[in-house]
Amino acid sequence: MIDIARRLEGIAPFHVMDILARARAMEAEGRSIIHMEIGEPDFPTSPAIVEAGIAALREGHTHYTPALGLPSLRAAIAASYPPEASVKPDHVVVTPGASGALTLICAALINPGDQVLMTDPGYPCNRHFVRLFGGEAVSIPVGPDTAYQLTPDLIRRHWTRKTRAVLLASPSNPTGTLIPDKDMQAMAATVGEPGGVLIVDEIYHGLTYGTSVNSALSHSPDVIVLNSFSKYYGMTGWRLGWLVAPAKFLPALDRLAQNIFLAASTPAQYAALAAFRPDVKAELNRRRDVFRKRRDFLLPALRELGFEIPVTPEGAFYLYADVSRFTNDSMAFAEQLLDKTGVAITPGIDFGAHRANEHVRFSYANTMENLREAVRRIGEFVAGA
Amino acid sequence: MIDIARRLEGIAPFHVMDILARARAMEAEGRSIIHMEIGEPDFPTSPAIVEAGIAALREGHTHYTPALGLPSLRAAIAASYPPEASVKPDHVVVTPGASGALTLICAALINPGDQVLMTDPGYPCNRHFVRLFGGEAVSIPVGPDTAYQLTPDLIRRHWTRKTRAVLLASPSNPTGTLIPDKDMQAMAATVGEPGGVLIVDEIYHGLTYGTSVNSALSHSPDVIVLNSFSKYYGMTGWRLGWLVAPAKFLPALDRLAQNIFLAASTPAQYAALAAFRPDVKAELNRRRDVFRKRRDFLLPALRELGFEIPVTPEGAFYLYADVSRFTNDSMAFAEQLLDKTGVAITPGIDFGAHRANEHVRFSYANTMENLREAVRRIGEFVAGA
Repeated sequence: MIDIARRLEGIAPFHVMDILARARAMEAEGRSIIHMEIGEPDFPTSPAIVEAGIAALREGHTHYTPALGLPSLRAAIAASYPPEASVKPDHVVVTPGASGALTLICAALINPGDQVLMTDPGYPCNRHFVRLFGGEAVSIPVGPDTAYQLTPDLIRRHWTRKTRAVLLASPSNPTGTLIPDKDMQAMAATVGEPGGVLIVDEIYHGLTYGTSVNSALSHSPDVIVLNSFSKYYGMTGWRLGWLVAPAKFLPALDRLAQNIFLAASTPAQYAALAAFRPDVKAELNRRRDVFRKRRDFLLPALRELGFEIPVTPEGAFYLYADVSRFTNDSMAFAEQLLDKTGVAITPGIDFGAHRANEHVRFSYANTMENLREAVRRIGEFVAGA
Repeated sequence: MIDIARRLEGIAPFHVMDILARARAMEAEGRSIIHMEIGEPDFPTSPAIVEAGIAALREGHTHYTPALGLPSLRAAIAASYPPEASVKPDHVVVTPGASGALTLICAALINPGDQVLMTDPGYPCNRHFVRLFGGEAVSIPVGPDTAYQLTPDLIRRHWTRKTRAVLLASPSNPTGTLIPDKDMQAMAATVGEPGGVLIVDEIYHGLTYGTSVNSALSHSPDVIVLNSFSKYYGMTGWRLGWLVAPAKFLPALDRLAQNIFLAASTPAQYAALAAFRPDVKAELNRRRDVFRKRRDFLLPALRELGFEIPVTPEGAFYLYADVSRFTNDSMAFAEQLLDKTGVAITPGIDFGAHRANEHVRFSYANTMENLREAVRRIGEFVAGA
């Protein structure tokens, strides 16, 4: 008997880790594996950002920064928002990844027993962060009728005296869907009215295809937004993110950051300063266009094979497909697909409980060549299933 | 009224941040400031480690690593312990700083209401990590009679049915004192007997002067040790640490790491691989010898001026001095010293409550030239006080 804290009971391991481990073992045996289970861009970090990090290291920037981040980076992040969002450098906290931002936000807001509303399906860590601090993640089943997002009506129906906050994500992982500006505005009002806090995960911002959405900060000065240099900026391994919060929260966030992190990585912060340069932005947008081409290929190809993707995903690099035609066990489906074809995907059960066994997530953070080959293999697999 | 989680009530800001802010403002006005409040080596990261990080970046190592760390780094860390410690790579978790290690350990072990015993004075973040997860940090007053460390007797006297763990630090921050091997062995037995967990902070290991101590892992297979690349290895800003735990805890720690961090910084992990090279080790030990010379200068010089340092600190880079001859308000003393002389130090109240107003901490992470000048200025200050 191992005596582990009770909060672990509510923190499930990611099933995709088993898929990944099995895929790596197969690769080690020489099998051809196509990774569509991965949640990070296949591009390495942009050379200009890398060189900025290297320059900082050569200049000896290896000591701690202030807990809230380099002032110049906080200013650059603030300046990256449009004027109507009114983001001041003082509202920005640089964090070790968006994970660090969620840690700070949950630690600052959540008392044991507090409820946080979020979507099911949704990014699994979100509910675990809430659980970490004794809160209760209330997962609200969503489907294609609301583009897998919450609505003012859903928020009102699930609101209780214990509700402290609502966590939205746009673009969403795993569904890639966005929250239109007017809906974001309406939900900010709905959450604010009873004194709740709206938290918006914008870590896939910038990776949108055709439709552009504004930051939630453009709609309400009261929201807390978290973002990251991982996805659009391609800096996953550097572990750098940020949050923007109303000024009233900053003293508490500063105290927590001082204690929990001391500071985010110094070389990463200096590297990130280059991320806002126009030439880098141009390169990042070329990469975004590559993602768009992949989506434009993969979406109809999978639909053609019988995968139901009723809402066209307009952001991130995921397709969340209804596979009820093929299985009622998404993990077994993912395992069999991997074993028979070498294509690795993520079972829906990693993203919640609502029809989770009838869904899988495809990541298109892979080359067009590999995606074409994957579609070919998946086609054979479902034809034989 | 800002509605912040109740746990913030127990998380005080660091008073040294006010000292630091004031010191920086004075510097901006052209005043000569000598920083003795700082908790990080004044050396930049060793060039060999920096070059290893740069090489990794150029090779495109900018993606996530496994949650528990690069296998090669886990192996290198395990191999850095002597054979009798029996540390296997599977026992090692690479973390974003020792802060990340403490987050994982507390999240894995502490249920709300659980007590963790620790010293007062002690590193302030430690009690805050416990508080973060709803636990109660029980601060046990210690003094020169026990070299500011706990003893089996103190542990037994403060043990209750709620006690879950004991947290020791050797070398200690702020006192620089060590726990001799036989005492560590005895405390491991004392904590283990009622089924508690002994956690040992060894982040200043390697920075010991004259006396060498073994890792607690050499004395008991049941302890959890946390360590860091920040202090001895001089990598503060890279934010990289590790923990070593009994195998039974690893599944829970893995699940938590997957959720809370995803992984530690990739460039930092590759850079750290160079830290174990014999040539780098030789350089780190030359730096350690520099620290020793500084201690050997500063300790008698401060004693001469009337600062009482009854136990000779044998590690870290701190002197914890009894200033009851001069003040009963350590913050006011630190502020006046800064205002009048430009020497910045840390008030005892940052390290606990026990006689905290009658103590201050001096860091000797500064050049010998600056330390000499600081002693001159402090001498004038106390002569005029």
